[in-house]
Amino acid sequence: MTSIDVRDGVPPVDRARREYAELAARGLRLDLTRGKPAPDQLDLSAGLLELPGPVYRAADGTDCRNYGGPRGLPELREIFSGPLQVPADRLLAAGNSSLELMHDVVVQALLAGVPGSPRRWAEEERVAFLCPVPGYDRHFAICERYGIEMIPVPMTGAGPDMDAAERLAGADPAVKGIWCVPKYSNPSGETYGDDVVRRLAEMRTAAPDFRIFWDNAYAVHHLTGEPAGLADLLAACAAGADPDRALVFGSTSKVTLAGAGVGFIGGSPANVDWWLDRVSRRTIGPDKVNQLRHALFLRDEAGLHDHMRRQRELLRPKFDAVERILAAELGGTGLASWTTPRGGYFLALEVPEGCAREVVRRAGEAGIVLTPAGATHPYGKDPADRTIRIAPTFPSLPDLEAAIAGLAVCVRLVGAERAATG
Amino acid sequence: MTSIDVRDGVPPVDRARREYAELAARGLRLDLTRGKPAPDQLDLSAGLLELPGPVYRAADGTDCRNYGGPRGLPELREIFSGPLQVPADRLLAAGNSSLELMHDVVVQALLAGVPGSPRRWAEEERVAFLCPVPGYDRHFAICERYGIEMIPVPMTGAGPDMDAAERLAGADPAVKGIWCVPKYSNPSGETYGDDVVRRLAEMRTAAPDFRIFWDNAYAVHHLTGEPAGLADLLAACAAGADPDRALVFGSTSKVTLAGAGVGFIGGSPANVDWWLDRVSRRTIGPDKVNQLRHALFLRDEAGLHDHMRRQRELLRPKFDAVERILAAELGGTGLASWTTPRGGYFLALEVPEGCAREVVRRAGEAGIVLTPAGATHPYGKDPADRTIRIAPTFPSLPDLEAAIAGLAVCVRLVGAERAATG
Repeated sequence: MTSIDVRDGVPPVDRARREYAELAARGLRLDLTRGKPAPDQLDLSAGLLELPGPVYRAADGTDCRNYGGPRGLPELREIFSGPLQVPADRLLAAGNSSLELMHDVVVQALLAGVPGSPRRWAEEERVAFLCPVPGYDRHFAICERYGIEMIPVPMTGAGPDMDAAERLAGADPAVKGIWCVPKYSNPSGETYGDDVVRRLAEMRTAAPDFRIFWDNAYAVHHLTGEPAGLADLLAACAAGADPDRALVFGSTSKVTLAGAGVGFIGGSPANVDWWLDRVSRRTIGPDKVNQLRHALFLRDEAGLHDHMRRQRELLRPKFDAVERILAAELGGTGLASWTTPRGGYFLALEVPEGCAREVVRRAGEAGIVLTPAGATHPYGKDPADRTIRIAPTFPSLPDLEAAIAGLAVCVRLVGAERAATG
Repeated sequence: MTSIDVRDGVPPVDRARREYAELAARGLRLDLTRGKPAPDQLDLSAGLLELPGPVYRAADGTDCRNYGGPRGLPELREIFSGPLQVPADRLLAAGNSSLELMHDVVVQALLAGVPGSPRRWAEEERVAFLCPVPGYDRHFAICERYGIEMIPVPMTGAGPDMDAAERLAGADPAVKGIWCVPKYSNPSGETYGDDVVRRLAEMRTAAPDFRIFWDNAYAVHHLTGEPAGLADLLAACAAGADPDRALVFGSTSKVTLAGAGVGFIGGSPANVDWWLDRVSRRTIGPDKVNQLRHALFLRDEAGLHDHMRRQRELLRPKFDAVERILAAELGGTGLASWTTPRGGYFLALEVPEGCAREVVRRAGEAGIVLTPAGATHPYGKDPADRTIRIAPTFPSLPDLEAAIAGLAVCVRLVGAERAATG
């Protein structure tokens, strides 16, 4: 059976195949896989490359060049305290990555447990995490690596489905944690609603040592003039079921330099003390010179927001282009829907069930490399095979436009072929 | 019974007490606890604080500001390849600390095993490490933290007693590793002899996954014009019992900036692949900008050695002062012996059995803070209570001279009191 929706007398599948052949013939080599800053974004932090200059003392007189200072530089923690919603005295500045902090919390939980753990997580028969989907593949990879079972919970447009999360966490003591990117989430771009934050803090969990991994990676990464609001999770936990429930993470990787930024971890006094004790066997302190460099460069919280406004000027046209091209090329076709984030680094494209893998494969064959379909789900398996993560930041605007237009060709092709064989 | 060795008609214990009272009355506040570089040493790396400047590309064109590059910057690995005796393609440049690399190897061995492990170390009934003593307290702290049993092996002046090491490693499959600081060892300053290196590589171990943690922290830290030679352990292992037996560690913490340097890990191809796989879930790459900064600053291996000659000019007078004062104040008393390192950051002072703790206590009360007695041994317990680690680098020369002279007063006091009550 062929499709009956024929324009110009050409069956859609034939037109789609011709378009795809033309696309493939262009020999593109475009990469939309990862959430990497583009070179012009990194140029905004050129000043960092000559800092700290002759200065090497922190505001309190500490010689940043020497060992010590496990909490990190106070003046840098002060700058990020507001945006990350963690009091500065409970916010620690660490190495060049927040991912490694999350990883190491899991590792230390396995080897020692967290405050409130009846035993080391490694001694539990099962450990499981709730994984809002679509979500961040590197979170899932940590769980997979250490044999932590992943239980998907659907995102709703305002954070995870809390009915499901409450049910799962309340019933099963093996459920020890949940991964959250609460603002401009990876990849959907949605921000958790106040009610979701409150319910996360207040829900009953069968595990006494349940932890919310609050990866606030995009806290200051607004794409519009109206920043998304996010309720204060630590405050909600302090007033809620367990003051120690949340661990907050952040980093400057997508503020300054992706490889040479500063990661942050914060939480309740008990969690911070636990963390400092755990890392005391591992390090004699973080790179305080890089922290000083960042404090001098960003100056204060206002300086941070100024800097992010310059980032937005570079990123907004890219996200706008994606929206414009997807609307023009796929709007009204019934073949796709997509999110329109107000911040962050990603958007999610939804194609008809069972099509995502094929779209990604076809795009790859035409020289447009996308994050593998399924990466947004635990174990790399999207049961509906419909979510594709789009990372618009790294390519130049013309490359991005070509890639998104090409992606639309692939969506139409796969859609038309399904219709033709359906 | 009072001592019979009376000079000037004053019993030694009285004279020693009077000297100590005078020392205490001076109200010193001196710190010899840790192996920290002094500010003038850090000043040698002032150039680093303005680097990399406008440059951000590695020799191979990589944009060091962005994510990626898990092996670290090739040009920096090249500089340290010779000194650390690891081919550059098997030497990885990482974060700001080699301690964290050693810690993380232990953690990953516990959670996953190393190449050749029959099972994860956490699943073993017992895991034990050989600990040459006197040794480095932070090595021992990692073992203690993770419940790894520590078995002391005496140092001989040219590395560990290999008869003991061979016997212990050969007989007990729980013995999975040995901590080594092979050159200018912490704290004795001795360098492992060629025969020791060979025997370490060739010895039969009951554990199939035995690992030598080769912490070559002082590879280029010579105090004399005649650098100590050290046999190539990786080559010896490749020709010996197990090519995967050794993991080599190093860092620039005591080359450039103690808090803001670069750590290195290297080994056999199997170990390197294992490590890269293990850390792939933890990080998207090290701080390549800091690595580039170091490569530009040090330039090449000759530049590294030039830089270390300038370090030596600052450190040699301090070690000479310690030797001079100890010889003048304690020589011929029979109350102390000490090592005279040709490099590194420490020396070991040996006092009569049962006296180290008391000497450190008395020194502390007189305002001279020393590394706790026992820190040089597993579990912080020196069974003979006689080894005191001296870290001469951080204080100014006058402070150091005052501290060592004061320490000698404390040794004479404790010695005289023992003799008086003996």
